[in-house]
Amino acid sequence: MSQPLIGHLDPDFIALLDRLKDGLRTLFGTSNAMTLPLSATGSAGMEAALFNLLERGDPIVVGVNGVFGVRMAEVARRAGAEVTTVEATWGTRLSDSQMSDAIARVRPKVVSFVHAETSTGVCQPVEGIVSAAKEVDAMVVLDCVTSLAGRPVKLDEWGIDAAYSGSQKCLSCPPGLSPVSFSDRAIELVQSRKSPVQSWFLDLSLLAGYFSGAKRVYHHTAPITAIFGLAAGVDRALEEGLEARFERHSQAARHLIEGLEPLGFKPLVDAADRLPMLTSVRLPDRINGTGEAAVRTRLLSEFGIEVGAGLGPLTGQIWRIGLMGENARTETVDYLLDALRKILH
Amino acid sequence: MSQPLIGHLDPDFIALLDRLKDGLRTLFGTSNAMTLPLSATGSAGMEAALFNLLERGDPIVVGVNGVFGVRMAEVARRAGAEVTTVEATWGTRLSDSQMSDAIARVRPKVVSFVHAETSTGVCQPVEGIVSAAKEVDAMVVLDCVTSLAGRPVKLDEWGIDAAYSGSQKCLSCPPGLSPVSFSDRAIELVQSRKSPVQSWFLDLSLLAGYFSGAKRVYHHTAPITAIFGLAAGVDRALEEGLEARFERHSQAARHLIEGLEPLGFKPLVDAADRLPMLTSVRLPDRINGTGEAAVRTRLLSEFGIEVGAGLGPLTGQIWRIGLMGENARTETVDYLLDALRKILH
Repeated sequence: MSQPLIGHLDPDFIALLDRLKDGLRTLFGTSNAMTLPLSATGSAGMEAALFNLLERGDPIVVGVNGVFGVRMAEVARRAGAEVTTVEATWGTRLSDSQMSDAIARVRPKVVSFVHAETSTGVCQPVEGIVSAAKEVDAMVVLDCVTSLAGRPVKLDEWGIDAAYSGSQKCLSCPPGLSPVSFSDRAIELVQSRKSPVQSWFLDLSLLAGYFSGAKRVYHHTAPITAIFGLAAGVDRALEEGLEARFERHSQAARHLIEGLEPLGFKPLVDAADRLPMLTSVRLPDRINGTGEAAVRTRLLSEFGIEVGAGLGPLTGQIWRIGLMGENARTETVDYLLDALRKILH
Repeated sequence: MSQPLIGHLDPDFIALLDRLKDGLRTLFGTSNAMTLPLSATGSAGMEAALFNLLERGDPIVVGVNGVFGVRMAEVARRAGAEVTTVEATWGTRLSDSQMSDAIARVRPKVVSFVHAETSTGVCQPVEGIVSAAKEVDAMVVLDCVTSLAGRPVKLDEWGIDAAYSGSQKCLSCPPGLSPVSFSDRAIELVQSRKSPVQSWFLDLSLLAGYFSGAKRVYHHTAPITAIFGLAAGVDRALEEGLEARFERHSQAARHLIEGLEPLGFKPLVDAADRLPMLTSVRLPDRINGTGEAAVRTRLLSEFGIEVGAGLGPLTGQIWRIGLMGENARTETVDYLLDALRKILH
């Protein structure tokens, strides 16, 4: 990112962009032509997925078991969709049978849910829901913000039609970009829309002209420097190898939980459903409630460690500890555990 | 931008953000509380301005004399607005009287036009149009993408309700952020909407919770690194002093035109309406039409100079030469002129 700027239509930049798109395809487990770094954060990636696939009045089923499921439902409402939510207690996975029942009943155009719920640390199994969606020929949108490059994502094998992620999670790049991928089937649906996509900035047909046209047509100015950074992050992930990278995330998470339990922290999520890159823990009684914020403030100011607070119904009850990308190392975990022991001694 | 990342809710980052917002107020000539760096490019800034102020069925008058006026009209249509355009030949300014007539006839909720049309190099006088808009109590949206920090922008004095810019023009930062500013009157209108803003990502009421609330509420993850860069760019502009900066842009533009005319290039825009930071010139006969692209390619590959092509009806007829921010210097102009003399000898 310290490289001098070049133009967004410069042939050298277009070549870098093409190489980056290939790398993103590997991470997403897809051959989707329309795989690209969207020029805004993951929330804009979410809007891109839902705005392009939904028209006003279209039915959608959204799985909601955390902040980002709530957000998906809200974005879908703003697209004018008829939204049916299927809820699960925060910290647990969505129920395959409840999702399947809703899908069979509503026969939605789109089914949408979160792979790695950053607000709770739950990893959602994908295949049961996709299978129900395929039975009614619905498109499937998957939020991969926190999973991409930290655990397996297999869009093609799973049958996902649209997915989005963020640069700042397991890719360890600065926030600001959202890798997205759309299946050919999704693109066909976008091309056969009756009404224009409600965001010009996020309109896939227009983005395609710049990101994948033979003649690269100006749409908006791509964020060159951020894309340099993302390309470096993707290169690093591929150099490490995905299997090794996933194992490193898993090891770090195991080490964290083993170290936290003696201090009185208890995992929120059942072992089978835990994300490796985001560990949520219930707090020991002595720092529960309002006292927990003071401990997080000390971690940040004295040790330079930022730990996420609980959100929504889990506010004051849990911490969310991210071990993502470069940070997913046992040394990082030891540094946190030492700091906690000093504060809580 | 080489600084280590910190969190988007880190107190140190919030302090930097507050300082940046103050700097942006100085550049925009405003005391608007709601002045902030939006987390995407200028086109998203345009959508933020129009999506927040418009509801479905609202009438808007848009001035169109280049690519960005066309884009404003398109974005307004996607917001479901009833769009009336007032057109002027590309390369000329909008007519005050035609705009006033349309405004008096339509009595729009919003009037929208471009201050510095990057596709033609025309600077639009603001006050006549604003005065007509105020007579029918319309909100005024001004595109300041290319003008901000390169020539005077005076939102409060002019009576502008919403404005947006880009980080990559006269602030010489990487592309990716859009400084935006909304008047209190605009905020009141947003707060009294009947329907939600059609983009969750760009919803001002939600952005306010993060960017200016007493308690900074998570909305989306701010692009930290890009904001570090923008803050440095704004600091540099203010250290130079705005008057000195504007004069530097004007000097560079005069030097460019004086040097280009002997080579057979002729300014597209009348002297009174020319932008200093973007000079559009008609091409000499010998490189007109399809031959011009080859010259631009040589400029880029042999000299590292990128010159913009003509757009829309001006394709193949003009070049657009940017002298923005750090590049607005007579030395930069001399380097270009030398390169052109070598190629065209």
